[in-house]
Amino acid sequence: MTMLYNRVALVGLGLIAGSMALAMRRGGLAGEIVGTARSAETRAIAVDIGLCDRVVDSVAEAVQGADLIVLAVPVGAMGEVAEQMAPHLKPGATVTDVGSVKRAVIDAVAPHIPDGVQFVPGHPLAGTEHSGPRSGFAELFENRWCLLVPVPGSDPAAVDRLRRLWEAMGAHVDEMDADHHDLVLAVTSHAPHLIAYTMVGVADDLRRVTDSEVVKYSAAGFRDFTRIAASDPIMWRDVFLNNKDATLEILGRFTEELFALQRAIRTGDGALLQAYFTRTRAIRRGIIEAGQDTEAPDFGRAKRPG
Amino acid sequence: MTMLYNRVALVGLGLIAGSMALAMRRGGLAGEIVGTARSAETRAIAVDIGLCDRVVDSVAEAVQGADLIVLAVPVGAMGEVAEQMAPHLKPGATVTDVGSVKRAVIDAVAPHIPDGVQFVPGHPLAGTEHSGPRSGFAELFENRWCLLVPVPGSDPAAVDRLRRLWEAMGAHVDEMDADHHDLVLAVTSHAPHLIAYTMVGVADDLRRVTDSEVVKYSAAGFRDFTRIAASDPIMWRDVFLNNKDATLEILGRFTEELFALQRAIRTGDGALLQAYFTRTRAIRRGIIEAGQDTEAPDFGRAKRPG
Repeated sequence: MTMLYNRVALVGLGLIAGSMALAMRRGGLAGEIVGTARSAETRAIAVDIGLCDRVVDSVAEAVQGADLIVLAVPVGAMGEVAEQMAPHLKPGATVTDVGSVKRAVIDAVAPHIPDGVQFVPGHPLAGTEHSGPRSGFAELFENRWCLLVPVPGSDPAAVDRLRRLWEAMGAHVDEMDADHHDLVLAVTSHAPHLIAYTMVGVADDLRRVTDSEVVKYSAAGFRDFTRIAASDPIMWRDVFLNNKDATLEILGRFTEELFALQRAIRTGDGALLQAYFTRTRAIRRGIIEAGQDTEAPDFGRAKRPG
Repeated sequence: MTMLYNRVALVGLGLIAGSMALAMRRGGLAGEIVGTARSAETRAIAVDIGLCDRVVDSVAEAVQGADLIVLAVPVGAMGEVAEQMAPHLKPGATVTDVGSVKRAVIDAVAPHIPDGVQFVPGHPLAGTEHSGPRSGFAELFENRWCLLVPVPGSDPAAVDRLRRLWEAMGAHVDEMDADHHDLVLAVTSHAPHLIAYTMVGVADDLRRVTDSEVVKYSAAGFRDFTRIAASDPIMWRDVFLNNKDATLEILGRFTEELFALQRAIRTGDGALLQAYFTRTRAIRRGIIEAGQDTEAPDFGRAKRPG
């Protein structure tokens, strides 16, 4: 393995930054990993479990002398963090982020980036329903995609070095523009999350079905929704507030389709339902062929690594 | 292990019946297992893989001399199958089913049950996204719930013997009335399936996002929806057509809640979103504590048994 950055600063120490720390250390990709987080408790845990080489109390201190700065805070906090770090950046450094939304992060961060510093936004499509400094693991990015979203003026050499870091952590890398990223993610991640949160909320509200029944009989279907709906509330609040247009567009289409299927149920149009369900089955095949899930049946009790 | 039925007839040889055959054989629970299916191809596969002791061509032949008859066909086919079997049932036999809807199955099957034969509807809350005679495995029911829905006049001894069969195949058994069953399942399974089918259909329709992007970037969220939406199209068509009222009621509530969350996104009400997402996270905890899923993080590539 090759060291790619002398010093890496992780701003925020949750699932993604923690996993990056472990993956970079495993691969010998960084000379020193410095971390910081807003919460004193998070910093104390990171020290306790030895997540970074050094944990410091402020963004200013963390980014000093760093060759790569990774902003790994909720999307809504990116602007504030960027403002705090800006005066302390080393000339020639690269700033990246791992936010789930790209246009809003670019709008919030780019104005703070000084001349001579590169900004290369990024988004690893990886995660679990857990969060916090204890939730990271070195394998999180293996065989997952990381999307880089270079901004006008991004130095190709800086983009390339960041690409090699993600590849060395096990990810596949693609480049995409910010608006297209935000639309694709609205479809594949943001709208599904809101839908799962909604369905779990409905179940919890339904007084004629007790919570214990919902829990006991959470057959395949609802059980998967609850896992999705266990994701970090603040991270997801910020995703929806910062990818408003694309998410609302997809949800509008979703509601139209749902109404069409509800109407087919009401009128007894079995042919429409069967044709629709047959079509969606084919898409699953594509995802398995692309290696983004296994074909093994999921029946809800499998022990999983991690 | 104790043999509980001398001869068991499986009508339909898909995931559930196939798993029952394997679980009953493993436990020595049935003297002879006879199977039939409408499709000649399914019957040929069942013979080929040795799923049953004997595979026969007709329902009439399958149920002759059987002590337990398991109707394991799509809900919409239950009435026709019941009519075919009725004249050939042995006095003292028990008929059960494994349909995902109970009121409609009772309405379709009960009128055909002759005097001296017991009818004890049932529903194992177990499955995978796979279907067909090759998809079964003996462990499918372990630690899953099976709901029995006795009808007026069900002989307690027949109910008890069927309960012991399910327990011997690894399931927990509860009893419930048909209408409550159909409402609980609308919440925990039927509405989530329709929602997943819808979201996958929306993604497939969206021309500004290519199918290959949807597949490649199927981050957690959408990937789980595609698994749910890969379930058997005919089985699910019949579920929705036969649990119309409860499913439409839950979908109506779902849409109301979804609109409230969409409005919060549109107006930037972050406090509402965060509070909602915090509440749904707690429900997940209950499901893990109830043993219906593991706490291990799911990041989409875990190899699973089966």
